[in-house]
Order: sequence, then structure tokens, then C-alpha cells
Amino acid sequence: MTIDDPELLAEMKAAFMEYERALMEDDVEAMDQLFHDAPTTNRYGVGEVLYGIEEIREFRKGRGGSPQRKLGKVAITVYGDRYATADAEFFRENSDRRGRQTQAWVKFPDGWKVVSAHVSLEGSTH
Amino acid sequence: MTIDDPELLAEMKAAFMEYERALMEDDVEAMDQLFHDAPTTNRYGVGEVLYGIEEIREFRKGRGGSPQRKLGKVAITVYGDRYATADAEFFRENSDRRGRQTQAWVKFPDGWKVVSAHVSLEGSTH
Repeated sequence: MTIDDPELLAEMKAAFMEYERALMEDDVEAMDQLFHDAPTTNRYGVGEVLYGIEEIREFRKGRGGSPQRKLGKVAITVYGDRYATADAEFFRENSDRRGRQTQAWVKFPDGWKVVSAHVSLEGSTH
Repeated sequence: MTIDDPELLAEMKAAFMEYERALMEDDVEAMDQLFHDAPTTNRYGVGEVLYGIEEIREFRKGRGGSPQRKLGKVAITVYGDRYATADAEFFRENSDRRGRQTQAWVKFPDGWKVVSAHVSLEGSTH
């Protein structure tokens, strides 16, 4: 299996950064375009669990935007010709807790889409 | 792209449950076998960020086992012939916070392996 095909890796990094832009600008339509439109697409956020694209859409509409943040370390790997993982640290304004975001991406005919996402703040283990 | 090929889905569910068994029994060797042996395999835990299989191994050796837990909702989806996501809720003994675990799995010649994992406890958003 090819790991990190250069062309696919470049596509994935662009998709990842486009999602970050959309998140920071609360561009709900762009965020929606980057998540796979299916009941199997799930997102665990810092304070919520969302199953299926409809629950994710409802959450975004009601959220009023994400807290502003800066990315830290970003680790993206492409497996084969249509699968990728993106593991990223982030730091929110006015928070001293490290944020962590993981995304599983699949390349569909209409481009790279997130199929599973998990966002959390590093914390105590209890 | 085929979604949830029945044979692959059955394999994946078995691999997922085998990991859960290994975690609960602190079977470090079995856990290690189920994570892809590569520097690109990452794991964000409740209280740590780990990049590469070596950091994950060091953490497991020093951990003395995971807190005991029961699984809640589990959502597994297989994309195509060798990719899968597993999103699961869990509840730890002596904790009233909901746990969330996501894993991205890839099927390599030697079987299904986790390439990215994220574990957190649901919390406040600040």
C-alpha cells in the first residue's frame, strides 16, 4: 500500500486547511461540504456526541461558531489511494488546555470528506 | 465504493472487540498487535498525546492498565475494501463522565490495524 502519495497528500493538506479556514470563519456551508453526507458520518466534540450528518448540521447551525484557535502540531497520513487520517493539536484563545482533533478522511468521487471526527481538550484522567 | 461489506464488517467488529478485551486485561502484546507498527500511528489519550508506535508502546508499558469500563454505543463503518472507522462511547467505573473513543483502522496484509486513535471524556467546552 502506498503511504503518502505526494499528490494525494497535497490534496489532503489543502482540504484540511480549507476546513480550518471554514471553522474559523463559521462558514457552515463550506464545513458541510467537507463532511461526508451520510448517516454514518460521526463527530465527537468537546461537549457533545453527534451521529450522522443531520445531527452534525443541527449542531453547527446552533453553535454560533467555534472558539478561535491556533493549530499546533499537525500529522496527516494518506493510506493507499483514498484514505487519510489527520491528527492535530490546537490552542484556543483564553484556554491553557491543549486541544486535540482527529479526523478520518475518505476520497469520494466529489473529493476528500471527513467521515469521523473527534475533538477534545487534554485533561485529567479522572 | 462499497460501504459495510458484510465480511469485512464482521472482521472489523471482531478486531474491535479483541482490542477491547486486550485493553481490559492489560494484554499489552495483543494491543500492540492491533496497532499499525509505524511512526505514523498516533494516539491521543485522555491525558496524553502520542506520536508514532514507539511513544504508544512506552505509554502502555508504563501505564499499568486502563481503568475498567463498559462500552456504550458503538458505530463501525467499513469504507471500500480496507478502511474503517470505529466510534464508541464508554463508561468508566467510578466516573460519571461519558467516554468517547474513535479509531481509524486500515486492513494491511497481516490484518486490520489501528492507525489513529483518540480517547477523551466528555466535558465542559472551556
